[in-house]
Amino acid sequence: MPQISKKGKQMPASPIRKLVPFAEEAKRKGHEVYHLNIGQPDIKTPEVALNAVRNLSEDVIEYSHSAGNESYRRKLAEYYKNVGINVEYNEILITTGGSEALVFAFNSTLDPDDEVITTEPFYANYNAFAIMAGIKLVPITSKIENGFALPAIEKFEALINEKTKGILLCNPNNPTGYLYSLEELNKIAEIVKKHDLILYSDEVYREFCYGGNSHVSAMNLGIDENVIMVDSVSKRYSSCGTRIGAFVSKNKEFIETALKFGQARLSPPSFGQIAGEASLDTPISYFDEVQAEYIGRRDFMVEALNKMEGVVCPKPKGAFYTIVKLPVDSSEKFCEWILSEFDYNKQTVMLAPASGFYTTPGLGHNEVRIAYVLNIKDLKNAMETLEAALKAYPGRVI
Amino acid sequence: MPQISKKGKQMPASPIRKLVPFAEEAKRKGHEVYHLNIGQPDIKTPEVALNAVRNLSEDVIEYSHSAGNESYRRKLAEYYKNVGINVEYNEILITTGGSEALVFAFNSTLDPDDEVITTEPFYANYNAFAIMAGIKLVPITSKIENGFALPAIEKFEALINEKTKGILLCNPNNPTGYLYSLEELNKIAEIVKKHDLILYSDEVYREFCYGGNSHVSAMNLGIDENVIMVDSVSKRYSSCGTRIGAFVSKNKEFIETALKFGQARLSPPSFGQIAGEASLDTPISYFDEVQAEYIGRRDFMVEALNKMEGVVCPKPKGAFYTIVKLPVDSSEKFCEWILSEFDYNKQTVMLAPASGFYTTPGLGHNEVRIAYVLNIKDLKNAMETLEAALKAYPGRVI
Repeated sequence: MPQISKKGKQMPASPIRKLVPFAEEAKRKGHEVYHLNIGQPDIKTPEVALNAVRNLSEDVIEYSHSAGNESYRRKLAEYYKNVGINVEYNEILITTGGSEALVFAFNSTLDPDDEVITTEPFYANYNAFAIMAGIKLVPITSKIENGFALPAIEKFEALINEKTKGILLCNPNNPTGYLYSLEELNKIAEIVKKHDLILYSDEVYREFCYGGNSHVSAMNLGIDENVIMVDSVSKRYSSCGTRIGAFVSKNKEFIETALKFGQARLSPPSFGQIAGEASLDTPISYFDEVQAEYIGRRDFMVEALNKMEGVVCPKPKGAFYTIVKLPVDSSEKFCEWILSEFDYNKQTVMLAPASGFYTTPGLGHNEVRIAYVLNIKDLKNAMETLEAALKAYPGRVI
Repeated sequence: MPQISKKGKQMPASPIRKLVPFAEEAKRKGHEVYHLNIGQPDIKTPEVALNAVRNLSEDVIEYSHSAGNESYRRKLAEYYKNVGINVEYNEILITTGGSEALVFAFNSTLDPDDEVITTEPFYANYNAFAIMAGIKLVPITSKIENGFALPAIEKFEALINEKTKGILLCNPNNPTGYLYSLEELNKIAEIVKKHDLILYSDEVYREFCYGGNSHVSAMNLGIDENVIMVDSVSKRYSSCGTRIGAFVSKNKEFIETALKFGQARLSPPSFGQIAGEASLDTPISYFDEVQAEYIGRRDFMVEALNKMEGVVCPKPKGAFYTIVKLPVDSSEKFCEWILSEFDYNKQTVMLAPASGFYTTPGLGHNEVRIAYVLNIKDLKNAMETLEAALKAYPGRVI
């Protein structure tokens, strides 16, 4: 029998994959399962995007330009200008989701065994993209005690060697909900410049910043040649299945190289580009409502969690995730137990064990990631269920 | 300034990329440019697919299952059964185009420096996917003299070493239009089995077989555990921009491993899956019409080409491409010249120089690839233009 590759063996399975059969079994038993495990918002996709697809006039669905439709790129450049990021349309490549943008970024700039420093916990799929490119992600642990702020810049400095090619930041952060400040980002920019690194900046949650904290883009740090910004329509327009993202850089060589990877896969999805382009006409009121909704959810959830004995939840300043410390022996065991052996009025909760977001062994074993993507009524039921579960859990540790 | 990767430097630019500015300039001069350079058919996408998208009922465009919607996979399994390929829905992963299916196939089964044997000329992007995976494509030259039939099996046998992991075939073939016979495929199956290799079978042109020649799928060669079949809706339903393909295998380990790559990119495009699933209801009459149209185009074009002095065009038995030998010093120069310095009644033609489809240096220098994706009226004008150009070309060689 032919063998699978080493790379294929190394590829991580999704951190919640093992839990899926337990969730399915809970549903079969008639339990309501609240999904706090995945960043799939319940917010409606803007009508303007859906209607553009419904009003499709083409009768042949042709390949688009490999960089994406020029009309879309021009309009996206306007959007960026409106949020204070000055880019031209030819500094943008449309990609199949933010995922592909990051794969293009890694492939265009990194060779096997090159190293990229990032903060952990980090978005679990970064690890998958690193394995695909054969490169090494070097983590610096951020801590729940200070809300997952940027670790001391000296720790980055200490890890830089001849193999280090870049730093990867997600801002606002998935999974921590931390929003990096201008001061923190300036420190990053300084070492990026000093060592001529690349800053891979994942800014897909740009619009999700709360409590007067505003987003600072890596495109505005004065290190133009050294930045690749990754973006997506998935979260901004609650349009995850559209699979449209962007690779943005003022470094022409990066753009030209990424375009060659783009040409190899021919073009990004045409229907998705229609939706993406139309999404740019979404009225401001949509975002105001969405933001108010997420602030409400966050405030409710953070208060509810911190009232539970032994639970620690920092207040996220962006995105719609939080890493929460639970009084349990093992969050993996707890996440399985709550689905398979527990219910509260026939309700249960699916959470993501945080260990999948760390690469340092042993970290995250008593933490979970919660995505607050449910409406407050459901969130309230979920929190009550979680509180009752923590009281009943046999592996409770204080 | 930070550097791009070696991989990025190695990535080939599209074989026709250098010609694009000349085509644009010709259009600015008011010349009609007939595009025979790219496999973008002018055939209409089935109404049933377009209407499914137009009738979109969802109000949140969510991630789908990473393997693709189960309803789509089940229906696709039925389609395969109808064309004599016996697969179950869980032996299918929906991908973002055939391109992604091949990337998943390489990543799941090959590590850097592994070798895959293929026939040349081959689809130029195979080379790009090989560079992305860090593997080596080892070509065996097929010859225009016998219509690009499978080279002697001893040539494959002679190239197999401890690094050889697989054989890649495109059937019917892009760029040659050759359709491999059962006898040829059985020879391939025999060495695949003998050396426990993987047969990567690109069957995206399955429906395009002409003149009573029927398609034999690699899934039916009795080497189930050793086959990964790559498929796509792009050509079958003239739906290239939909970006939906499939990775099909009866080897469970391949499916499980490819799914991990699928999970890393979350899901294939939702709108495209709606179109793809609906496409399966395309009436048979659509394919009858399309096939009659392509046979008419092929017969007209092959006859016209072979009437031109010094031109050799084998009769393709499948797909909608042909590799044509021209009486020119350099097809690259000729393809540039015909766009930039020639017109025939204000018409000109864009062709793909064949050198981009070979890796052996020097091969294809007097060949071009023609995609017969235009209606007969346009094709007639294109052939007249080409004939006049070959007479006028200063670098003509007999």
